[in-house]
Amino acid sequence: MIVDCHGHYTTAPQALWDWRKRQVSEKSISENQLKISDDQIRESLESNQLRIQKERGSDLTFFSPRAGSMEHHVGDAAISAQWSRVQNDLITRVCTLDPKNFAPVCMLPQSPGVSPANCVEELERCADMGFIGCNLNPDPSGGWWKEAPLTDKWWYPVYEKLVEYDIPAMVHVSSSCNPAFHFTGAHYINADTTAFMQLIQGDLFKDFPTLKLVIPHGGGAVPYHWGRYRGLAQDMKKPLLKDHLLKNVYFDTCVYHQPGIDLLLKVIPVDNILFASEMVGAVRGIDPETGQYFDDTKRYLDNSKLNSADKQKIFEGNARRVYSRWKPA
Amino acid sequence: MIVDCHGHYTTAPQALWDWRKRQVSEKSISENQLKISDDQIRESLESNQLRIQKERGSDLTFFSPRAGSMEHHVGDAAISAQWSRVQNDLITRVCTLDPKNFAPVCMLPQSPGVSPANCVEELERCADMGFIGCNLNPDPSGGWWKEAPLTDKWWYPVYEKLVEYDIPAMVHVSSSCNPAFHFTGAHYINADTTAFMQLIQGDLFKDFPTLKLVIPHGGGAVPYHWGRYRGLAQDMKKPLLKDHLLKNVYFDTCVYHQPGIDLLLKVIPVDNILFASEMVGAVRGIDPETGQYFDDTKRYLDNSKLNSADKQKIFEGNARRVYSRWKPA
Repeated sequence: MIVDCHGHYTTAPQALWDWRKRQVSEKSISENQLKISDDQIRESLESNQLRIQKERGSDLTFFSPRAGSMEHHVGDAAISAQWSRVQNDLITRVCTLDPKNFAPVCMLPQSPGVSPANCVEELERCADMGFIGCNLNPDPSGGWWKEAPLTDKWWYPVYEKLVEYDIPAMVHVSSSCNPAFHFTGAHYINADTTAFMQLIQGDLFKDFPTLKLVIPHGGGAVPYHWGRYRGLAQDMKKPLLKDHLLKNVYFDTCVYHQPGIDLLLKVIPVDNILFASEMVGAVRGIDPETGQYFDDTKRYLDNSKLNSADKQKIFEGNARRVYSRWKPA
Repeated sequence: MIVDCHGHYTTAPQALWDWRKRQVSEKSISENQLKISDDQIRESLESNQLRIQKERGSDLTFFSPRAGSMEHHVGDAAISAQWSRVQNDLITRVCTLDPKNFAPVCMLPQSPGVSPANCVEELERCADMGFIGCNLNPDPSGGWWKEAPLTDKWWYPVYEKLVEYDIPAMVHVSSSCNPAFHFTGAHYINADTTAFMQLIQGDLFKDFPTLKLVIPHGGGAVPYHWGRYRGLAQDMKKPLLKDHLLKNVYFDTCVYHQPGIDLLLKVIPVDNILFASEMVGAVRGIDPETGQYFDDTKRYLDNSKLNSADKQKIFEGNARRVYSRWKPA
């Protein structure tokens, strides 16, 4: 079985984005005013994610709201709470309609400067609906980085709930309002790198030994600079990274060329790698050097030197272990 | 000849840092109040950079003020101008005392929100003194990223001067005041990634076809995500990166483990890679996995599959071409 742990509902029906526009401008639209039929949902998936799953040979995607549209920086906490409910409800509908191909991952109703404790209610609601993971935004300001590092007690209320439910969090920012940072080309990758470095500096997993964090996009710059990070940790008198972080931190395989995947597999232990493609996502074209889609990451793994036991871990076994609430339909 | 294009005077005599403290607190200290003897300079180098050059077998370092101490965010433009003069003068003294081992690279008197035109005077002064390169900080705010992208006309006055003198700029941030960003572990690497993505989005080299920018720290996350960047450029209808950027953009080799260097050499054309170690810099320890210093990057290049012609380019030839003002003593 091939499990893609990182997919967003980028192809949601237009009615969703229209509703969002009205939510932001009118500020008092009800959730009932969003009308999307089951057929519209099916259609949005069949020509996109489902088609690609079939073409590329993956079976199931851990599916969350479009990352760039979480937009925690837009409006206040109430707007964010309503938007999260709407988006997470839609993900539930996707996964109820097609439980064989999608498992639900939620967004959280974060808002800049508002305590993450404010996310607990929605997280509980989602857990009760069967969500298996969540996305946690380390920068709800959208590129201005005003929140405390992820190791700060500020974040503990949400970690407590994640641990209680054994829900892993993918550390994933949303869009960037900062003109310095292109969202998928700089902000996403920087956030991955930043989060990992914050974890090196702190000692978060001493307080939360069972918390699980997934760093997407192949861990940002981290595997490429693995020597730098091992060296910085050593200079800071931290334990070896394998002991300090790798019991709790995982990297996905959203790296869009063979040499990058080969490096990831070389430096990061196989138990810490989860297959992912983020298909219908940041990079949608065909690589002229290979004739294949850039984001067809399964191909890079198939072409790698992985043995079949390790491949099974990356494609399925690790996902089962990390996302313990996920039970295939 | 082995030329290390990225070294900072991290070991400058304590008197420099003491003077800086007084400059910031008293705001009216004169440059003459800084007293450093030639012997103190010699001593600060002999036990550090010179010793390491000998031990590792490099010959010459392109040498600039300590990056983390440029601190463009501290004080106003006048403070920054005075500090730049002091730091650049000290670099001149180093390179005059020992022209065989060091060639001078300047910092610029940037200040948040102040036009880079303000840097032209110091850049001219340094060029006249024989400086061969400069460091350009894309985020003088120190981690808050409030300046326009590097492709904005805001930066053009400094590019015009760089082109006039044929001085390459290394895009290098200083320390981070943002608690989200560890300076050498997140801010530096993020800045490299961010700058490259800004260059993809823009069309800077159409206006400055002879401008040369060096992205340090192996290009941040860029080579690891080379497929992502090629794909994003393609989605944006930009030319192939080799045509869009690689006539003007270079990467150094400050990547502190063998797999990272191997990846860099695999994906970036050899003509765009400059040897560098940033020794006595971000990572000072010995890698327990190899028994060698993390930042002994020459060793990784020696252990790579590079042929001798390509090695010569990376160790010397490219530096001669890119830093055209540099004439070995």
